[in-house]
Amino acid sequence: MSSPSASTMSFAVPPEDAALAERVLAFVREKVVPYENDPRWGAHGPSDELRIELNDLAREAGVFAPHAPKDCGGRALSHVGQAAVFTAAGYSMLGPIAIHCAAPDEGNISLLDKVTTPEQRERFLKPLATGAMRSCFCMTEPAPGAGSDPSQLKTTARREGNSWVIDGLKWLITGAHGAGFAIIMAKIQGGEGDGRATMFLADMSEPGIRIERTLDSLDCSFTGAHAVVRFDNLRLPADAVLGEVGEGYRYAQVRLAPARLTHCMRWLGSAIRAQEIASRYAATRTAFGKPLGEHEGVSFMLADNAMDIHAAQLAIWHTAWTLDQGHHAGTESSMAKVMCSEAVFRVADRSMQILGGLGTTRDTIVERIFRDVRSFRIYDGPSEVHRWAIGRRIVKAASK
Amino acid sequence: MSSPSASTMSFAVPPEDAALAERVLAFVREKVVPYENDPRWGAHGPSDELRIELNDLAREAGVFAPHAPKDCGGRALSHVGQAAVFTAAGYSMLGPIAIHCAAPDEGNISLLDKVTTPEQRERFLKPLATGAMRSCFCMTEPAPGAGSDPSQLKTTARREGNSWVIDGLKWLITGAHGAGFAIIMAKIQGGEGDGRATMFLADMSEPGIRIERTLDSLDCSFTGAHAVVRFDNLRLPADAVLGEVGEGYRYAQVRLAPARLTHCMRWLGSAIRAQEIASRYAATRTAFGKPLGEHEGVSFMLADNAMDIHAAQLAIWHTAWTLDQGHHAGTESSMAKVMCSEAVFRVADRSMQILGGLGTTRDTIVERIFRDVRSFRIYDGPSEVHRWAIGRRIVKAASK
Amino acid sequence: MSSPSASTMSFAVPPEDAALAERVLAFVREKVVPYENDPRWGAHGPSDELRIELNDLAREAGVFAPHAPKDCGGRALSHVGQAAVFTAAGYSMLGPIAIHCAAPDEGNISLLDKVTTPEQRERFLKPLATGAMRSCFCMTEPAPGAGSDPSQLKTTARREGNSWVIDGLKWLITGAHGAGFAIIMAKIQGGEGDGRATMFLADMSEPGIRIERTLDSLDCSFTGAHAVVRFDNLRLPADAVLGEVGEGYRYAQVRLAPARLTHCMRWLGSAIRAQEIASRYAATRTAFGKPLGEHEGVSFMLADNAMDIHAAQLAIWHTAWTLDQGHHAGTESSMAKVMCSEAVFRVADRSMQILGGLGTTRDTIVERIFRDVRSFRIYDGPSEVHRWAIGRRIVKAASK
Amino acid sequence: MSSPSASTMSFAVPPEDAALAERVLAFVREKVVPYENDPRWGAHGPSDELRIELNDLAREAGVFAPHAPKDCGGRALSHVGQAAVFTAAGYSMLGPIAIHCAAPDEGNISLLDKVTTPEQRERFLKPLATGAMRSCFCMTEPAPGAGSDPSQLKTTARREGNSWVIDGLKWLITGAHGAGFAIIMAKIQGGEGDGRATMFLADMSEPGIRIERTLDSLDCSFTGAHAVVRFDNLRLPADAVLGEVGEGYRYAQVRLAPARLTHCMRWLGSAIRAQEIASRYAATRTAFGKPLGEHEGVSFMLADNAMDIHAAQLAIWHTAWTLDQGHHAGTESSMAKVMCSEAVFRVADRSMQILGGLGTTRDTIVERIFRDVRSFRIYDGPSEVHRWAIGRRIVKAASK
Repeated sequence: MSSPSASTMSFAVPPEDAALAERVLAFVREKVVPYENDPRWGAHGPSDELRIELNDLAREAGVFAPHAPKDCGGRALSHVGQAAVFTAAGYSMLGPIAIHCAAPDEGNISLLDKVTTPEQRERFLKPLATGAMRSCFCMTEPAPGAGSDPSQLKTTARREGNSWVIDGLKWLITGAHGAGFAIIMAKIQGGEGDGRATMFLADMSEPGIRIERTLDSLDCSFTGAHAVVRFDNLRLPADAVLGEVGEGYRYAQVRLAPARLTHCMRWLGSAIRAQEIASRYAATRTAFGKPLGEHEGVSFMLADNAMDIHAAQLAIWHTAWTLDQGHHAGTESSMAKVMCSEAVFRVADRSMQILGGLGTTRDTIVERIFRDVRSFRIYDGPSEVHRWAIGRRIVKAASK
Repeated sequence: MSSPSASTMSFAVPPEDAALAERVLAFVREKVVPYENDPRWGAHGPSDELRIELNDLAREAGVFAPHAPKDCGGRALSHVGQAAVFTAAGYSMLGPIAIHCAAPDEGNISLLDKVTTPEQRERFLKPLATGAMRSCFCMTEPAPGAGSDPSQLKTTARREGNSWVIDGLKWLITGAHGAGFAIIMAKIQGGEGDGRATMFLADMSEPGIRIERTLDSLDCSFTGAHAVVRFDNLRLPADAVLGEVGEGYRYAQVRLAPARLTHCMRWLGSAIRAQEIASRYAATRTAFGKPLGEHEGVSFMLADNAMDIHAAQLAIWHTAWTLDQGHHAGTESSMAKVMCSEAVFRVADRSMQILGGLGTTRDTIVERIFRDVRSFRIYDGPSEVHRWAIGRRIVKAASK
Repeated sequence: MSSPSASTMSFAVPPEDAALAERVLAFVREKVVPYENDPRWGAHGPSDELRIELNDLAREAGVFAPHAPKDCGGRALSHVGQAAVFTAAGYSMLGPIAIHCAAPDEGNISLLDKVTTPEQRERFLKPLATGAMRSCFCMTEPAPGAGSDPSQLKTTARREGNSWVIDGLKWLITGAHGAGFAIIMAKIQGGEGDGRATMFLADMSEPGIRIERTLDSLDCSFTGAHAVVRFDNLRLPADAVLGEVGEGYRYAQVRLAPARLTHCMRWLGSAIRAQEIASRYAATRTAFGKPLGEHEGVSFMLADNAMDIHAAQLAIWHTAWTLDQGHHAGTESSMAKVMCSEAVFRVADRSMQILGGLGTTRDTIVERIFRDVRSFRIYDGPSEVHRWAIGRRIVKAASK
Repeated sequence: MSSPSASTMSFAVPPEDAALAERVLAFVREKVVPYENDPRWGAHGPSDELRIELNDLAREAGVFAPHAPKDCGGRALSHVGQAAVFTAAGYSMLGPIAIHCAAPDEGNISLLDKVTTPEQRERFLKPLATGAMRSCFCMTEPAPGAGSDPSQLKTTARREGNSWVIDGLKWLITGAHGAGFAIIMAKIQGGEGDGRATMFLADMSEPGIRIERTLDSLDCSFTGAHAVVRFDNLRLPADAVLGEVGEGYRYAQVRLAPARLTHCMRWLGSAIRAQEIASRYAATRTAFGKPLGEHEGVSFMLADNAMDIHAAQLAIWHTAWTLDQGHHAGTESSMAKVMCSEAVFRVADRSMQILGGLGTTRDTIVERIFRDVRSFRIYDGPSEVHRWAIGRRIVKAASK
């Protein structure tokens, strides 16, 4: 009941996208789920070897990277199409990795598709979109740098002749280990664009880039983990600028609104999975004379899960539809981010509670879903930052 | 921001319905809101005199009863159309009364449209749908009768020659005072359909019908209040049966799923109103050196209101769309009922909190909205009954 | 189970206070509760006639005003003693009125006991403490005056010869109708204490005091309702100053911390009552084949009520104990205020939900409890102001 | 502010216990906290080597096992004394391990102190209470055995001559790895006590005991992890029965009520720690122009933490006091368990949210606290089982 049926999906989703989503769901259930206990999925995420193996399966099944631009072999899915497909992929935490729609690559593909030069497209976007390499997005800094407030950016880029020289410290850089290249946010120091944030593209093999350490984190589903990355006299050629000098914040916005929505889509799939596991358990495990699911204390939790999943799905569809109409959808995507991240967390939390002791062990995937969705209430803008932005707009509109 | 803009409405609403909704909203803002302090709106609801005055204004404005069947002068709005129009009407608690889409008449019109004989259509539906008379729906009984559990029905109907004789006690009968007729749910005693629930149509002027008392209630928006109604040897002709003998529960279902959704629509309008009032207050009232709305403690509540309104609206649209596709939408309407009734209550509660002392007085309409939406978490199925039903279906599906 | 048993009460309460509380509870159950349907309790609170009748009954029963100072015939109860006695009184919303521990008189007695001159003690405190007259506390002002933020005080007092001349507008002045005197907060304009808040004592019969209107309010338990009061060239003698010039804010604090705690005590009593009514209903009303209380959807609400009542009671006891140790207990009383006001609201809300349709009517007292405790989340400092104050102290302490 | 000050602690705690708690807190802060990043604390809990090192430090500091019986070198702390001391120990998750009051040993010491024979006391209790060995408690079984419902016990014990033969499968057996002995719950099969639950004591070195696997779990603070343990033809001598045959459930109750309360105490200490870390971060990390803690969105969370900690502490003290009075305190300890486990989870969750990205990493202890307290909402009776028990008693009492 909680999973999107074909008929209700057509509320918003074109039939061809719904059909693709069905194929992705079948692929994930049959081919990907069996890998969930693969030892190559460790505390710091699935290994690249595992990722590549899953990518090959997805290619075989004809479901690899349907969101990629057409010149990169994809279908350039609409946002509504992504809603259908990425939710299906999210049924397993390895699903997005398999079809290559996981963060941060998916968001990077989307950004590069919009702002690269033809040369950058060939060198960075194409290998990324086809799965030949991974990438990372280097924006977040430890205190007192840019965390929730991007204006506190401390990493600098200064011009020296034909080069840019970048210095700074980034952390919580998802996927850094094994990434082929990085998108780096830095503040121009001196000269044109002085003081303005700018994005750069850099091979991770550059000698000025050093992964200082890998963070042990609550979540565990990202290939390449989260790392501390130092730029120490990193020298890049003049054409390493992504798009235009000084447009870093604007591009960050271009990237973030859709990227946070695709997070919602994938985690919605995991919430549907958790609910499915909890429902099945409630239907079979007995206590006090009847199946757990006949205790209202349990069935009400399942009902609340269903409503949370429903609201999250509707908010995603609506925002996706609004983006597809060409709107910026800033408020809609902020609302969807808060609503979904908090809803899927509640779903995971209740599912764990229903599973009882079993739920706290890795014997079901719910334990890992719980950990990962908890982090989602923080990354891509913590709930508080979005609430602040939504509230501010309301007050501003009411002040007129 | 919290109110549905034209562009987002088109996510689901046909342009002609969106346009009608805009006209209804303008009518309510300009013509109806000024009546909110009319002394004819008392603790037991607006008087019939006030209702009739408002109906005339609506007729003048061309917005009266657009949901009525076409042969009764209406447009027979689709469910999605109702979602747009009734939400607009709900902007004032007097709006639904003005355009004649308030409960219980709106649900009764819908039911009668589906199951009356041609004679009943002329005698009951037409005067009801055109606003010539009001009606009430007599189902709920005090303990130990039918409350949340309709199977506990105690009111009886037995056949005597060509007559039906009905005895029983009903309560919480909304709109009983001043109603022209009643739909009565009773259990057949003896003969054909023995033990089965059946609906009857009866003029309220029948000598066997007595309004025992008017209940003092938390809510205050229903014309004709809530009453205790006794049937004491009420004799009705054989053709007083609505539809077929023994089909009472089925008709109750036919009535309830859409009727609970139209409640959601109307109360969503009130939630939007409460948010508008709270937002304006937050933008102007100062405390501790700045407008209230610049305190996150307040602006976060406005943001949460916006998200609750958003989720409620999406759930309504989705269920309305599903009903329009011809589906029964039992689970969808249960979910929408719980989600909306709880969301609009939270919105009213937060709006009151933002308004502070002012919010607890009748100086704004929020105080009355708060009271009425509290009751909505109980009538048309308390949240617990819906959660139980939703949960049971999930467990049943998972047991297969 | 939810009501404080003798044994657990002794966790903190001295035996003589516990015994008095038992007598008060018995008095309220037997003598006061029957008055709950008295028509003299209207929308604007119980009438003075009803109050006086109840006071007489309390005197007869030997439970009148045990908190009053000893020279006024009371026992000068400790805070812990008040916790026991006022909670017992709160079992009926008329109980505090009967034993004369209702707001604002109880807080005014406490304040006057601490800061009056001997003359003021005779003229104002004694008649107040013995129930010969009522009083009101005039602090809150409509926008843009002093609401949550007392520093926005707009009412002024200026010296003219031997007189003080006061001008300003107050609202939400509880008990103004029928009060014998008022405590007025005003800001000194010119001269000694210029710009500083000061309290004054004034007979309500002064020609410069005018009750402009009575507010219709959600709550309904205060004798004398809530009014808008205007001071228009109100001339008071020099000795009308309560305590010292310029000490108004300090006295407000002296009054507020204990006064908000006694609100908690009284409303805790009402929460216990609501829980008792809901529990009894759940034990007897059936639905779906068994008593409501055997449905976990209901019994979990009763359990949550019990835990909310427990936490509220413990927080009250602890703060009362801390006050009795001679501490200011600012943070403790802020925490107790938020915890209790929100807990008793949840209890009332759940109790209403359990009662279903019945709960939304005045057929039980729960409907009125619900309305009054909602307001308590706002008066004596809205939750947000207390959270802000608590949070600020934590951050300040952590900054060291 | 959130941590228990000396003065407020004396609300209930005797000075000598308060003084000991202060010494424990100082010991934990100075000696234990530095071990939190010791690599011997892995995903399956701290190693025994680390535990022994910490025990030695505690002995040196004179704070080892003050709850142990006097003949085992302890002080036989009262429940109120435990509340003070164990909360202090919980400041670090390694604190309870250091002073040897961690689960399941602490509860096993308490149980054995009450029901062993003198021989069992020498052989099992003394080495356990002095830290010479650890123990485990084998009750929980995988589906369809005894989980929340102990009556579903599947492990059997049958008499063969002078021996007991035990067969069955247990899981989630905390501390099994490295334990010296086990307390085993089994159902007598045939003969005296047929069908009745009975407890047995067994060396973990018995050939009939096999640890099948270690569970990967969300929590990570228990020495010896959680394991699956199989009893396969486990033969024990006749005197291996703990206490009396057939009294297993009664002893489980004897053990559980205090044991769940000591969990509350320890985790309260961790909640205080989390709040301290979050407060300090909020006071220093800036965003949007000021310290995080000056944003109400953050400071309100700190205030809510303070109130949750306060309520949890009061509920613990009250239950401890009630136990010390010689009462069974079944309802009180159920309420305390639900209130504390849910409160400390919310505190950990909010603290993580305040810390943002940092909070999701192991760079602070909050990440591990979050994981462990989540599990506490499940073990020792999930919230739902306690709510059910509390609610049932309320309904039963109201039925009279």
